[in-house]
Amino acid sequence: MSLFDDLIPTLITDTPAQGRELAIMMARKTIATLQPDADARASLRDDYANDTEQLLAAGHIVAVEFQTIAAANNYWR
Amino acid sequence: MSLFDDLIPTLITDTPAQGRELAIMMARKTIATLQPDADARASLRDDYANDTEQLLAAGHIVAVEFQTIAAANNYWR
Amino acid sequence: MSLFDDLIPTLITDTPAQGRELAIMMARKTIATLQPDADARASLRDDYANDTEQLLAAGHIVAVEFQTIAAANNYWR
Amino acid sequence: MSLFDDLIPTLITDTPAQGRELAIMMARKTIATLQPDADARASLRDDYANDTEQLLAAGHIVAVEFQTIAAANNYWR
Amino acid sequence: MSLFDDLIPTLITDTPAQGRELAIMMARKTIATLQPDADARASLRDDYANDTEQLLAAGHIVAVEFQTIAAANNYWR
Amino acid sequence: MSLFDDLIPTLITDTPAQGRELAIMMARKTIATLQPDADARASLRDDYANDTEQLLAAGHIVAVEFQTIAAANNYWR
Repeated sequence: MSLFDDLIPTLITDTPAQGRELAIMMARKTIATLQPDADARASLRDDYANDTEQLLAAGHIVAVEFQTIAAANNYWR
Repeated sequence: MSLFDDLIPTLITDTPAQGRELAIMMARKTIATLQPDADARASLRDDYANDTEQLLAAGHIVAVEFQTIAAANNYWR
Repeated sequence: MSLFDDLIPTLITDTPAQGRELAIMMARKTIATLQPDADARASLRDDYANDTEQLLAAGHIVAVEFQTIAAANNYWR
Repeated sequence: MSLFDDLIPTLITDTPAQGRELAIMMARKTIATLQPDADARASLRDDYANDTEQLLAAGHIVAVEFQTIAAANNYWR
Repeated sequence: MSLFDDLIPTLITDTPAQGRELAIMMARKTIATLQPDADARASLRDDYANDTEQLLAAGHIVAVEFQTIAAANNYWR
Repeated sequence: MSLFDDLIPTLITDTPAQGRELAIMMARKTIATLQPDADARASLRDDYANDTEQLLAAGHIVAVEFQTIAAANNYWR
């Protein structure tokens, strides 16, 4: 059993929009895995959401995850 | 329903130029999703647009999104 | 013989969730290879887990490793 | 109509060299789109061209854009 | 003749583990090429191995090199 | 005519080693294009070669360029 079983049962989505949501979720859950302390994450969140450099870093991760998901879905062609 | 439904109905575009616009839009909307407070974003925008490091970080994200979109469109060959 | 033999016998996994776990493990083991001193790593871990920039950097690596693993598994289609 | 119509009518080029030029131009035009004020860009340019970290960041973007263009051209094989 | 001839005669490896070793070696040798002075590298190594940001940067490079090697080996399927 | 014509007549190389050399050269020439003043580059070089963060950034670019070249050569299989 994996803690990701419920989160990522599949990379296949009906639409690009749902693929985008999945990309954002995957990026977030990885951070939660790397820093499992919820309080620590909460205190870090303020730094992050008000620092454009970090928002850009997060946006970059989402772009990479989405690249994977889009390929998995054959780009929803 | 996904908040991206209206934004990214498809990755297919008629031209490379439209693909580039989509890449920029996708990058922007991710940031807006990560920092949903419009006032916070507005105050962050000044930092960002006048800091070459951050402009480069944003340009990098656009390049990655465009890579996905270009593949989706079979490179408009 | 390679020190990775036991860690990465294969890139093939049954599910996306297991692929995600593998991605995280691979990212971690690389760092352990680059800094083999366990005490040094332990003292570095605090910096890392409480610094959103570094958590994002780690999340980015996981996204890249997962991209490889997902392709290896033909995206678990 | 897109502001990129004249800039990127196609990703197809005759040679790798022209593909490289296109990659550099695409990277530059994205920055111009993100910071449309020419005076602001001019004042930022000094920072950028004399800061190796930023030159490297720009070189990285060019490498990613070129990856897309090279794939589009089937690597000019 | 290339100084890499002995280092990278092929990208093909028997196992994913050997591919991982090759990825790490390739990343290291590139740095050695960019800074050929061994003493300078030795003095830089302390900075690097005790700085999580730099360990993460190195881990990121290994992930990218591994992506190439994994594709070359058709993912050892 | 393009200033890259002599530098990158083709992405095809006989060996992985030559592909690696090409990747390094391409990364270097891009920087030279972005900062064409040779004196400025010379003064920047010291910063760069003695700063592990920047060496890593350069190594990352080489990894991305090599990924493109390796694909172009069908991984020298």
